[in-house]
Amino acid sequence: MDTLREDECWELLSSSELARIAFAGAGGVEIFPVNIVVDDRTLVFCTAEGTKLAASAVFHRVAVEADGVDEDTGLAWSVVVKGDAKVLEDFNEIYQAQALPLHPWHPGFKERYVRVEPGEIQGRRFLRGGSETED
Amino acid sequence: MDTLREDECWELLSSSELARIAFAGAGGVEIFPVNIVVDDRTLVFCTAEGTKLAASAVFHRVAVEADGVDEDTGLAWSVVVKGDAKVLEDFNEIYQAQALPLHPWHPGFKERYVRVEPGEIQGRRFLRGGSETED
Repeated sequence: MDTLREDECWELLSSSELARIAFAGAGGVEIFPVNIVVDDRTLVFCTAEGTKLAASAVFHRVAVEADGVDEDTGLAWSVVVKGDAKVLEDFNEIYQAQALPLHPWHPGFKERYVRVEPGEIQGRRFLRGGSETED
Repeated sequence: MDTLREDECWELLSSSELARIAFAGAGGVEIFPVNIVVDDRTLVFCTAEGTKLAASAVFHRVAVEADGVDEDTGLAWSVVVKGDAKVLEDFNEIYQAQALPLHPWHPGFKERYVRVEPGEIQGRRFLRGGSETED
């Protein structure tokens, strides 16, 4: 198992559309998939208004994970970002987020933009079929 | 977005080798990929001895998520199981887990088997590229 450099982590995250976000909610740990985009070494995603994340504190400690498999080498990778998720409230911030290449949302949904400021980023490359990659 | 029936959730989990497990650790929420196998409506996976999960309490409240895309319909799905993870200590339980079709681990690793007893299972099917699927 290899530890990835920070620039490798960001490169892999940039190539990922899908990630999973986890955070401590009132009913225990929540985890769900999100479409992410990397913007200036932060992660941005949309969440529907009224979801647990949007409805909870404006600042939220989260962990975001993306993984995949390198087709050439057959090696799997996983990157985890831990940081603070902030539901964007400021008009300029929302306007800026709307310009990002995030997938279009469902018409009729009220979307909230969330930006995750990374406090910590860790990545690993490992053989598929091996054990989990936590250290 | 469709809510999946419980039997659909288990069927999708059974077809998944890779999932992600999230739990509240001392340093915040942890999330990492695991290879899972469904056994009698529980989830079983291996974790290396000394990992945060194995080293922490024997019982642990966790959330496990798997997702994928239906090739025929192009619809994505995500299933989340919330429950208690138990690091197997009993010889008979470990023996039983060793018979499961879990991927072989790396030689030399000391593996611990973990079984997640589901308290709650939720699944959703949704358009790819849409917003996140939390309700």
